[in-house]
Amino acid sequence: MHDRVFLNADGEMLILPDLGALRIFTEFGVLQIRPGELALIPKGIKFRVELLGPEARGFVCENYGLPFRLPELGVMGSNGLANAGDFLAPVAAFEDKDTPTQLVQKYCGNMWAMELAHCPLDVVAWRGNLTAFKYDMHRFVSLGTITVDHPDPSIYCALTSPSDSIAGPNADFMVLAPRWLVAERTFRPPGFHRNCVAEFAAILQGEKGSSGPAPPAGGAILHNNAVPHGPDVTTFESARIAGLAPQKVEDILMFILESRFPIQITEFAYQAQEAIPDPSIRWRGFVKRFPSD
Amino acid sequence: MHDRVFLNADGEMLILPDLGALRIFTEFGVLQIRPGELALIPKGIKFRVELLGPEARGFVCENYGLPFRLPELGVMGSNGLANAGDFLAPVAAFEDKDTPTQLVQKYCGNMWAMELAHCPLDVVAWRGNLTAFKYDMHRFVSLGTITVDHPDPSIYCALTSPSDSIAGPNADFMVLAPRWLVAERTFRPPGFHRNCVAEFAAILQGEKGSSGPAPPAGGAILHNNAVPHGPDVTTFESARIAGLAPQKVEDILMFILESRFPIQITEFAYQAQEAIPDPSIRWRGFVKRFPSD
Amino acid sequence: MHDRVFLNADGEMLILPDLGALRIFTEFGVLQIRPGELALIPKGIKFRVELLGPEARGFVCENYGLPFRLPELGVMGSNGLANAGDFLAPVAAFEDKDTPTQLVQKYCGNMWAMELAHCPLDVVAWRGNLTAFKYDMHRFVSLGTITVDHPDPSIYCALTSPSDSIAGPNADFMVLAPRWLVAERTFRPPGFHRNCVAEFAAILQGEKGSSGPAPPAGGAILHNNAVPHGPDVTTFESARIAGLAPQKVEDILMFILESRFPIQITEFAYQAQEAIPDPSIRWRGFVKRFPSD
Amino acid sequence: MHDRVFLNADGEMLILPDLGALRIFTEFGVLQIRPGELALIPKGIKFRVELLGPEARGFVCENYGLPFRLPELGVMGSNGLANAGDFLAPVAAFEDKDTPTQLVQKYCGNMWAMELAHCPLDVVAWRGNLTAFKYDMHRFVSLGTITVDHPDPSIYCALTSPSDSIAGPNADFMVLAPRWLVAERTFRPPGFHRNCVAEFAAILQGEKGSSGPAPPAGGAILHNNAVPHGPDVTTFESARIAGLAPQKVEDILMFILESRFPIQITEFAYQAQEAIPDPSIRWRGFVKRFPSD
Amino acid sequence: MHDRVFLNADGEMLILPDLGALRIFTEFGVLQIRPGELALIPKGIKFRVELLGPEARGFVCENYGLPFRLPELGVMGSNGLANAGDFLAPVAAFEDKDTPTQLVQKYCGNMWAMELAHCPLDVVAWRGNLTAFKYDMHRFVSLGTITVDHPDPSIYCALTSPSDSIAGPNADFMVLAPRWLVAERTFRPPGFHRNCVAEFAAILQGEKGSSGPAPPAGGAILHNNAVPHGPDVTTFESARIAGLAPQKVEDILMFILESRFPIQITEFAYQAQEAIPDPSIRWRGFVKRFPSD
Amino acid sequence: MHDRVFLNADGEMLILPDLGALRIFTEFGVLQIRPGELALIPKGIKFRVELLGPEARGFVCENYGLPFRLPELGVMGSNGLANAGDFLAPVAAFEDKDTPTQLVQKYCGNMWAMELAHCPLDVVAWRGNLTAFKYDMHRFVSLGTITVDHPDPSIYCALTSPSDSIAGPNADFMVLAPRWLVAERTFRPPGFHRNCVAEFAAILQGEKGSSGPAPPAGGAILHNNAVPHGPDVTTFESARIAGLAPQKVEDILMFILESRFPIQITEFAYQAQEAIPDPSIRWRGFVKRFPSD
Repeated sequence: MHDRVFLNADGEMLILPDLGALRIFTEFGVLQIRPGELALIPKGIKFRVELLGPEARGFVCENYGLPFRLPELGVMGSNGLANAGDFLAPVAAFEDKDTPTQLVQKYCGNMWAMELAHCPLDVVAWRGNLTAFKYDMHRFVSLGTITVDHPDPSIYCALTSPSDSIAGPNADFMVLAPRWLVAERTFRPPGFHRNCVAEFAAILQGEKGSSGPAPPAGGAILHNNAVPHGPDVTTFESARIAGLAPQKVEDILMFILESRFPIQITEFAYQAQEAIPDPSIRWRGFVKRFPSD
Repeated sequence: MHDRVFLNADGEMLILPDLGALRIFTEFGVLQIRPGELALIPKGIKFRVELLGPEARGFVCENYGLPFRLPELGVMGSNGLANAGDFLAPVAAFEDKDTPTQLVQKYCGNMWAMELAHCPLDVVAWRGNLTAFKYDMHRFVSLGTITVDHPDPSIYCALTSPSDSIAGPNADFMVLAPRWLVAERTFRPPGFHRNCVAEFAAILQGEKGSSGPAPPAGGAILHNNAVPHGPDVTTFESARIAGLAPQKVEDILMFILESRFPIQITEFAYQAQEAIPDPSIRWRGFVKRFPSD
Repeated sequence: MHDRVFLNADGEMLILPDLGALRIFTEFGVLQIRPGELALIPKGIKFRVELLGPEARGFVCENYGLPFRLPELGVMGSNGLANAGDFLAPVAAFEDKDTPTQLVQKYCGNMWAMELAHCPLDVVAWRGNLTAFKYDMHRFVSLGTITVDHPDPSIYCALTSPSDSIAGPNADFMVLAPRWLVAERTFRPPGFHRNCVAEFAAILQGEKGSSGPAPPAGGAILHNNAVPHGPDVTTFESARIAGLAPQKVEDILMFILESRFPIQITEFAYQAQEAIPDPSIRWRGFVKRFPSD
Repeated sequence: MHDRVFLNADGEMLILPDLGALRIFTEFGVLQIRPGELALIPKGIKFRVELLGPEARGFVCENYGLPFRLPELGVMGSNGLANAGDFLAPVAAFEDKDTPTQLVQKYCGNMWAMELAHCPLDVVAWRGNLTAFKYDMHRFVSLGTITVDHPDPSIYCALTSPSDSIAGPNADFMVLAPRWLVAERTFRPPGFHRNCVAEFAAILQGEKGSSGPAPPAGGAILHNNAVPHGPDVTTFESARIAGLAPQKVEDILMFILESRFPIQITEFAYQAQEAIPDPSIRWRGFVKRFPSD
Repeated sequence: MHDRVFLNADGEMLILPDLGALRIFTEFGVLQIRPGELALIPKGIKFRVELLGPEARGFVCENYGLPFRLPELGVMGSNGLANAGDFLAPVAAFEDKDTPTQLVQKYCGNMWAMELAHCPLDVVAWRGNLTAFKYDMHRFVSLGTITVDHPDPSIYCALTSPSDSIAGPNADFMVLAPRWLVAERTFRPPGFHRNCVAEFAAILQGEKGSSGPAPPAGGAILHNNAVPHGPDVTTFESARIAGLAPQKVEDILMFILESRFPIQITEFAYQAQEAIPDPSIRWRGFVKRFPSD
Repeated sequence: MHDRVFLNADGEMLILPDLGALRIFTEFGVLQIRPGELALIPKGIKFRVELLGPEARGFVCENYGLPFRLPELGVMGSNGLANAGDFLAPVAAFEDKDTPTQLVQKYCGNMWAMELAHCPLDVVAWRGNLTAFKYDMHRFVSLGTITVDHPDPSIYCALTSPSDSIAGPNADFMVLAPRWLVAERTFRPPGFHRNCVAEFAAILQGEKGSSGPAPPAGGAILHNNAVPHGPDVTTFESARIAGLAPQKVEDILMFILESRFPIQITEFAYQAQEAIPDPSIRWRGFVKRFPSD
């Protein structure tokens, strides 16, 4: 992609590698991210992505709605979740090159290409408050219950794209990072639930999901609107009898993307070799305990 | 107070005993509370208080502003803090007595008395959504950090009386109940701070404050607007070197009442024998560690 | 439908029988409704409908927007229109049956079916504030003019699904039930008007519309956005000379559903035998009275 | 007052004569009002009041809060209550007189006087949307129940001065004019109630109040915040057995002014000969009907 | 169009002739406009357009969103931009003609026609606050910098159709009329910029655009969302060295229509003879001045 | 004031010297300001003021309301008036001195003093978004009319302390700096007007006011609520006949502070030798021109 730059006129792009580090050269300067970090490129900004290793893989969320912002914290106070001070602007940089460059642009759902006689990443200075940025998800300050119960996952909200007032956000981006579990008198895994929004959960690092074994890093789990889900049989049975001493969840970095819009699966994904053949198998065999239990 | 009933036309009353149980006979029925529980009597409602033991003592917050309500939880989700389902309406009851009764009324800051020929707690049924209620503060679902840092105490907000938009709430009522502390890479006590609102902290049960030894139950600590405060020398020095294993704070029930209005101390309180003579002594002797530390 | 349950993941369903009573078995319990009552099933909730007689017929509004709620009453005060206390939650019930059951689900505009080995209406308890409910439209407290003029029909609003701020609600559900007409110095029928929203009026009981004879129960009248309408010639001429003594409108139960979205008519409805052949005939023959009248 | 003009820099003035007509010469022109009409003079506007007969008497509300405005009608629709088109601006007029004139001004609660060499009511033209105005209260379109129940008196709101969000308006001005009462299965007089706001009711024309005989025109009844009130014994007993045919309330024009602020009574009013000696006498003698009734 | 009237049920219409005057006969009466004036016909209102000369040409904006309104002026105060008093309602008029008339209606994107036996522009009186109106754009009170810098073109906003909260308005209508340019220490033409909204600029009178020569009256320039634009080479080079004495821009009347929605070009427009063959030629030849400049 | 520091717990302080430069040592670091610049010290922050010359003089606004903030610009766009980037935080600095220091504190309207054993301006680092700041008023980007008319002075608003919704802001701070006047077909000075808010205008530099000669720098003019004012006779008469070529107002720096609260004058100010003896003299002698003019 060295003589090619990209601009998305339809939406901003949230980039989340799970394998391989990236150097993203934007009109604002350079962002370098590795798995565990995210980058956000605003709508309408030119950039070029370079791989810092032999390969890279990850997730991209293209947001057509309101730009992602920090959620209001309300009674949480002035600190917690994703702290504003942990978001980093690009390192200032520009290129002054008179080499032919292809500009690929996404607009109204299509791709368009044109040839430029020079590299357009030639902005030497900027001011204002619109910028690309990066964020290290290990700096996320998880809050949670320190008494009983299992809060809604919205408590892990790092960025939100609010919606007009229909039902649920345009998109909420939640970070599930290492944290302590200390709830007492509580079934600690998420309960069985149906959600008015679609939940797309993806694994960036680690292998332990809260409802059972997670797919390997790079894998993802989708529960569309109104689809019931919860812990698998093994997780359920062991959580029923587990002791409730404080427990540190260490080996995990996941994100959840929730949206009031249904999330479509491409044919490519359906056909992928890596797709888990029959994931529902782990949810078979629940013992009926009512009324005689 | 058996042939006397009270009505406060100036504000609602939040009643918080720290010693002795109360039976509160209201126009809506009967509320029975003991230390660790609170009762709220709406503005303009008649009630009579009976002691269930030889003595009782506690705190009363008279709120002239917007009625206390549950705070908006925002990204905390649909559960947590004070759950709506834990607030209990009075047990239906009325008195049909033709005995002379004194009605004492507070209005425009003064007390007024009149004699009635019957007991006015004679409401036999009611409907609507205004009622006296009680709440057991041990049911408060404390949320807190499960990673790093020390959130603002507003995260313990159980009830709020919002303000017009000046600076800070009319009154926020916060509950500090038993809970786990698990923050790592963190100085766990509250940092030194100045607050734009006044903080009135009172001890209902237990003796361990977060900034040092608390006064006995029934005692209180006031830091008015802009007064700096934080841990005492001993708490500070021991927290600097403390290990950060999970720790359960068990023996405590405090509340904090914050208001954008300064809180006045009565002459009676200044002269009370129980007042701690020179409380600032525990904050003397901090070691200067900068720049050479 | 005995071994089949339904779930609508696209929207909530407002069910309005005009013929025959229904027993609706939901995950929250059982609702029994007859003509004159409505039931509302929230989005994403499983239910089964049973007929309590040989046949049943009625209207269903599938709402993709914000859930129906009570409208704000403003200066109307704390009572009137549809009172919150008249909405009834289901009678608690569940089924513990290990018989094969078909689950039919509507999602993204399509129907999907799957076989379950047991009946999923097996929820034994619930808490929260989302529930199916029923409402008897004869309990609607109609307000109206008690002096002069003809208020807008929005004054009969029982439930509203507000919209983002375009023009008109997503859907307003209005109840026209028995009521007194006492306006003086007024042409009592609705005036001729064009509406920025579409008006769908349907007859649940009775035969007397306000603009002329109504279709029989089960019939409906549609005036899409900007279509002018008003009383027919006979209604108009008789209202011009009618005395204005108080008049009780007894034999009627209608509802109007207004939406900023145009309402489409199916081919089935266009071809129905029951369709009135040329309804405009009743509006022919108005006498021109200006300027010489 | 012919060579004297007045300006109130503290608040607007709502003028409500109950006896005698007035000619109010303002900087915007001339308003002529008689009993049954009201005039409103904005804050900071000079005016002179002339009597059109031998005497005049009435009420003045001096409003220090937000200017009176029409209330939002919400689901009532676009017409009803006080219609905007019935408010009349002054008839254009000015005076070009070089005669000494005294200007009396109210500012910060005090009266100030100064001498001018000419009459300041010399504005020859104006534009904008601030003006004095008049309104004939007989044009008020009362809405009310046309089925059952007794709506809150806020349904008669003609003008409102909203408040910051404490509890109740700064001031609501309600008009009780001739209207039909048709509620069935209802106790038609107002029920016994306590109000969080103060209610000041005054009689402009007629003698029939809804809770019993009203004072003569020019009289007023005050129920301050939280004071219980309702029909007197005679009204109560007769309403219990009254038939509920439609009834036209003809001979009445009252207004109610409600405010979240307590309303003080002057010493002058307490001492007035016209004060009703012991008004509570009419509320003595209610029969206890519970539990044996 | 003499025996034909039109009604748009999909949106309001903003009519902007650049050639020839129009007489618009609406249900509210007659509006006569010439180039430099605009007319707005509300959604759902019938009207007929007559040419007052041999030909007419111009622009029409069909607005499906919220009706155009005056923007909030904020700290600009109570006057400026398009003053409310300069919008004129139609001159009262009606037609009482029993001649066959064709009614053409636009609804849901299609055109429909029906025959009426009389002319429907027969409304003899109306009240309310919905009306067609006209506005002379030469009465627009342009505000701008009187010190330094180049404000955003939104400062020329005459009418706005606000949007739900996505990104940018549904439509903003801006007027660029004769005005003074006095900015000092400033590059006076618009800087190079990319806009999150689409900009459609059209010439009503005059030939001088701010970024270079404008097309002749009736011409238009489109910069869709995220398309960078700014002054052409000649304009840029001359503005770099221009003196900055006050300068009156006289010979111009343009409007800009901005929308968060992309604006499509019809095939007809692409093929039009008048289209400028390669407009980008004027932007070729910028001299690189960095870093050695 | 070298061994004394000050803290205002009642409000923030806006400091505006008109004579002599100041060095303000705050807990956030050092601000150095000279006439034409302003400094703002937040509520509850300790600071010490040092004179950089032999004397200093100026204005201080103590704001008990919402903190001053930038006003919303609305259609003005993203730049103009006081640009956020021109507000400067203090230069980092601290003092590590163990010398006795007096802390003077203002709280609840009184002054309190206590002795500290060290200088409390010893904060070595800080983060967050509360800080003292300075602003050079010559960087204010004045916008104004570039066609006709005289906008409201709110167009010069640099900082605002919004109010609850009564009438007018708690305080608006406006900057009148050098700027071009180009309005045509306009009486250029401010018209005669009465304001619902109090206007306090003060001279920081220069001698030319817009309504006549201004007091010397350091002087001020007060027009309390509802007091009419406008140009003096000379200004009025010369403006009537003045040519309207572009005119640069050079020699002036004023500020206006508007508040919905009346502004009191101290006895000290009334008695000051510098007070202008009879300022109204310049407004005597207006010629009556109506109706014969």
